[in-house]
Amino acid sequence: MSGDCIFCTIVRREAPASIVREDADTLAFMDIQPMNPGHVLVIPKAHAAFLKDLPRGQAGPVFEAAREISFALRHSGLRCDAVSMYLADGKEAGQDVFHTHLHLIPRFAGDGFGLRPTPGFGRIADRAELEDQAARIRRGLAQSAR
Amino acid sequence: MSGDCIFCTIVRREAPASIVREDADTLAFMDIQPMNPGHVLVIPKAHAAFLKDLPRGQAGPVFEAAREISFALRHSGLRCDAVSMYLADGKEAGQDVFHTHLHLIPRFAGDGFGLRPTPGFGRIADRAELEDQAARIRRGLAQSAR
Repeated sequence: MSGDCIFCTIVRREAPASIVREDADTLAFMDIQPMNPGHVLVIPKAHAAFLKDLPRGQAGPVFEAAREISFALRHSGLRCDAVSMYLADGKEAGQDVFHTHLHLIPRFAGDGFGLRPTPGFGRIADRAELEDQAARIRRGLAQSAR
Repeated sequence: MSGDCIFCTIVRREAPASIVREDADTLAFMDIQPMNPGHVLVIPKAHAAFLKDLPRGQAGPVFEAAREISFALRHSGLRCDAVSMYLADGKEAGQDVFHTHLHLIPRFAGDGFGLRPTPGFGRIADRAELEDQAARIRRGLAQSAR
């Protein structure tokens, strides 16, 4: 818990929120600045600035909640033919509230939302390059297991 | 399992992939068309076109794997100050391979990646409007629980 964190104050019901779903580990509520109508945020109740700060076992419940809400959005009567899920993990990814949160955005054809690709996007990578990167990430995983 | 699904063929090791991480429920490997170097996909091993098609309990492991990889990317030596996670759940969200998959994209300032907002984005929603939407989604959740 963090006293200054807006999402922690919502978990404690000290700030208003339109709540969609709650379980022991997670809370889901409407984003007040929606990308499309029906835009939901799913958060772990425990304060964690970044996904990596969540204890093992505390990330999964966020995605289980998202799975249920992705179904519910399609049966809500709101316009929702698909769902975009986005999590900005760190400032350079566009994170603005430093309590990790997953965006669920109802989508429909022509709604205008999308990804702006990096300048180099489109190239198919060399296998040797991918193997080198995979080896580096596996070494990073070995560090996290310590 | 689906015979025609490229990700199922990777799970069966019948197609090449640079594998980063594997557990009983999930597989993570390098995206061959990376947005930035180190771009990883995490998939459930069980075939599910959309997130909602995963059995209860099979979504969480995908996010637990993502949590570990988000740490590992930052300790891989690849340029990664933050991570963008994206899941396109349905054609109208931009999904192109119909085996649900979570993108983990290493991010750094000035890399050029971003979200293209909807035309109406920016407005703070009325609380009454959010309450109505939350009630609709809660009714959708009640249907999924049946």
